[in-house]
Amino acid sequence: MGEKIQVKVEASNRHVHLSRHDADVLFGEGYEFGVHKELSQPGQFSAQDRITLVCEDRKIENVRVLGPFRDESQVEISRTDAFNLKLNVPLKHSGDLEGSPGITLVGPKGRVKLDRGVIISHRHLHASEDEAGRLGLKHGDLVNLRVPSIKEIIFNNVMVRVSSDYKLAFHIDFDDANACFFEEGILAELV
Amino acid sequence: MGEKIQVKVEASNRHVHLSRHDADVLFGEGYEFGVHKELSQPGQFSAQDRITLVCEDRKIENVRVLGPFRDESQVEISRTDAFNLKLNVPLKHSGDLEGSPGITLVGPKGRVKLDRGVIISHRHLHASEDEAGRLGLKHGDLVNLRVPSIKEIIFNNVMVRVSSDYKLAFHIDFDDANACFFEEGILAELV
Repeated sequence: MGEKIQVKVEASNRHVHLSRHDADVLFGEGYEFGVHKELSQPGQFSAQDRITLVCEDRKIENVRVLGPFRDESQVEISRTDAFNLKLNVPLKHSGDLEGSPGITLVGPKGRVKLDRGVIISHRHLHASEDEAGRLGLKHGDLVNLRVPSIKEIIFNNVMVRVSSDYKLAFHIDFDDANACFFEEGILAELV
Repeated sequence: MGEKIQVKVEASNRHVHLSRHDADVLFGEGYEFGVHKELSQPGQFSAQDRITLVCEDRKIENVRVLGPFRDESQVEISRTDAFNLKLNVPLKHSGDLEGSPGITLVGPKGRVKLDRGVIISHRHLHASEDEAGRLGLKHGDLVNLRVPSIKEIIFNNVMVRVSSDYKLAFHIDFDDANACFFEEGILAELV
């Protein structure tokens, strides 16, 4: 079956992507985010800044802002978070906000009531065009990835997302990460 | 490959099993637990009563007590809970408390400081001797179980636990449940 193909696994904690407009309301006109950490996907970073998610009488504090700005704000949480907020949140791929519920974002300078934008972001495999070509994969393919650990899991039907802006990495959320006893540096294997 | 073998999946939220002694301290001498729900495993039940787990400045409230009494108290939490409590908790099979950390239990009548007993309970497949025989499985076998869903997972290396006290069911914790979008009534398939 040829060589074993291994991929870096990255676990994404809950976070928000903000529009320029919403960032202005939450942090003040023209506010620029300080970089906390460059992420694996080129140009993406986690900001030093955090906000609070509020949903009726429930809230989650210290939710990290990711940059750069997007056209529309998007909140990515786990299913555990969704249950804690008592919010019915659909599983979606990033950018597909159709039918997603809203939530209130609270920052140091103001609050924004989103009409939509809260999703559970589906697992996905990022790849550049070169990497995808080398692995024989194309955008939209579904692959199975085994994460070896004492709580080993094979994640089935993981969507491949190919772009010249991407770099090879398997992204999972914190439910997935805790279920498979994720540790920094762990490699998944295409099966 | 013969017929498809399907197994009921049950998701266990965090809970505690108590010794008679610890129950006396937490709820009062000779206290008997009211049954909230009979569980699938014969004789096991969730009680109406709940306690609080306290670990330094962190706590988790409303943790369900399970009956009947055990020789030694045991606290089963998810990895998400362990991170929230900032407690280093090993993955163990129920009953193996060697090297597990302690925690403080708080009930309506008192508190108990356990020296050990907190575990992340490993996934397992319960089966009676008859059921195991019919499936060609024996106690201690490792099997792989696929849970079909929009976030499909194959759980690898699930230990088979056979006893005349058991009934066929695949037990997972809430990290696993949320990772695979568990819904009541879902069936896993032996692969």
